[in-house]
Amino acid sequence: MISFAQRLFAAAAQKRSSVCVGIDPRLASLPGTMRNVARGDAAAQAAAFEEFSVGVLDAVAPTAVAVKPQAAFFERLRAPGFAAYERVCRAARDRGLLVVADVKRGDIGTTAEAYAEAFLGGDEFAPMADACTVNAYLGSDGVRPFVQQALRHQGGLFVLVKTSNKSSSEFQDIDCSGAPAYERMAQLVNSWNTPADTTGYGSVGAVVGATWPDHLRRLRQLLPASVLLLPGYGAQGAGAADVVPGFDATGRGALVTASRSVTFPWGDGTAPSDWRGMVAEAAEKMRAEIAAALDRSG
Amino acid sequence: MISFAQRLFAAAAQKRSSVCVGIDPRLASLPGTMRNVARGDAAAQAAAFEEFSVGVLDAVAPTAVAVKPQAAFFERLRAPGFAAYERVCRAARDRGLLVVADVKRGDIGTTAEAYAEAFLGGDEFAPMADACTVNAYLGSDGVRPFVQQALRHQGGLFVLVKTSNKSSSEFQDIDCSGAPAYERMAQLVNSWNTPADTTGYGSVGAVVGATWPDHLRRLRQLLPASVLLLPGYGAQGAGAADVVPGFDATGRGALVTASRSVTFPWGDGTAPSDWRGMVAEAAEKMRAEIAAALDRSG
Repeated sequence: MISFAQRLFAAAAQKRSSVCVGIDPRLASLPGTMRNVARGDAAAQAAAFEEFSVGVLDAVAPTAVAVKPQAAFFERLRAPGFAAYERVCRAARDRGLLVVADVKRGDIGTTAEAYAEAFLGGDEFAPMADACTVNAYLGSDGVRPFVQQALRHQGGLFVLVKTSNKSSSEFQDIDCSGAPAYERMAQLVNSWNTPADTTGYGSVGAVVGATWPDHLRRLRQLLPASVLLLPGYGAQGAGAADVVPGFDATGRGALVTASRSVTFPWGDGTAPSDWRGMVAEAAEKMRAEIAAALDRSG
Repeated sequence: MISFAQRLFAAAAQKRSSVCVGIDPRLASLPGTMRNVARGDAAAQAAAFEEFSVGVLDAVAPTAVAVKPQAAFFERLRAPGFAAYERVCRAARDRGLLVVADVKRGDIGTTAEAYAEAFLGGDEFAPMADACTVNAYLGSDGVRPFVQQALRHQGGLFVLVKTSNKSSSEFQDIDCSGAPAYERMAQLVNSWNTPADTTGYGSVGAVVGATWPDHLRRLRQLLPASVLLLPGYGAQGAGAADVVPGFDATGRGALVTASRSVTFPWGDGTAPSDWRGMVAEAAEKMRAEIAAALDRSG
């Protein structure tokens, strides 16, 4: 039985990459004719999102180990969006990419079971993704079903610990008798983690913003058996040196995620006709920068 | 411009009800032939969920003020489930019921905007629901977009403060320098709340488990302008007397939600042929119990 960490580390070693590409399609940034769809036409927008996303998958498959499609942008388009989301996840897995469904779900009991089955698979339906993001404010009732399905399907989960956004400090940094709230969450994440396999890592990972390098160093210590998913690279301001503390001494244990800087490198301007080439280049640049920073630190 | 609180309180006065019916369809509990669908046939299951849910809506429309369809059970069925969820929400609104989309979403920036538009409506798509549940672990970045859409569309949101499940204490009750973490969350909820209208209530409500009557009393004080959504009634053990502290002195300001005890009153047994009548009776019983408890306390 192979684990999520084993699959991730094998792909990382093979591609010499720790890159996860966030797929956050927004109509206004899409290339060329893709954005010429009527307002209010959810099906046409979902088709455009899917076409763009699959183009990104093709472009980044050689250099990224994972993709992180953001469910919110698809759900905004209701049922046609949800169908497109599912197809994008499948297309990514078909291309040998690990899929982290960025859904930030969190509920309890049978409800959490239903969410876990929706994204990580169950008895009846195959997994949509290899891992998903989870909000554990509700406690272990909400996490256990994800752990169960992750173990069954060689998948993983990433619990929100310290997020990359500025206002994350409002709640996550509240002083809880000597430690910030997010460290208390990290302790829970550690307690929920499954016995480590030969990699030394379990199936319960954590989301830690790359925008907080000091917190990252501390959380790497508090979570020795958790793969860390590090958002905030690129457009949100974190660079290659900032993410190094998220890795272990062997250069493993973290997945760095960037969205806009890789998938929309043309910014607010018009995408060039060879937009796929530009996306591929941005992903390769990110891969090389992180690999070089890890080499320097190793 | 009428607000969510105004709409809620008008319905509550007219029906003399504070009942919100949670719609959590599970195949094994469905009545009669509805559950005779093939394993793995998501479309057929989604159709059965929709048929059952609409039957529940018809049964409870006279006595409930709101329904709370649980997205997880529908999402487990992927795109056909999401489509059925949307239709159930629409059917509820068509019957004059307020819809609280129980989605517990929470993300940041444009992602939170997309979720808010998905459920509360936006420039391009009409609201799916009148309110939704929100997880605010990420801070105000994740809440503001919901507040904006709520104000635009006369809707509301319910932020998770103290949930009804046993393991909620693992994180929510952590001591944060003299107050439990959930009280810190309550303070944030209060700070995010919009100026109160003539009802004295704003659009930002809170989820507080009815299973914790003492906490409920305290949170009613900490959140004077927030409608409280109280899960845990019925199957989870809370009774009419337990929810009274969630209401203000005029008997307003709370919405009590029950799922299994109203929608599956036949428990694990076989549903009677007049199952709709049995659901209607269970909803009326809950309505009357709460109204009587409020009368006794008033």
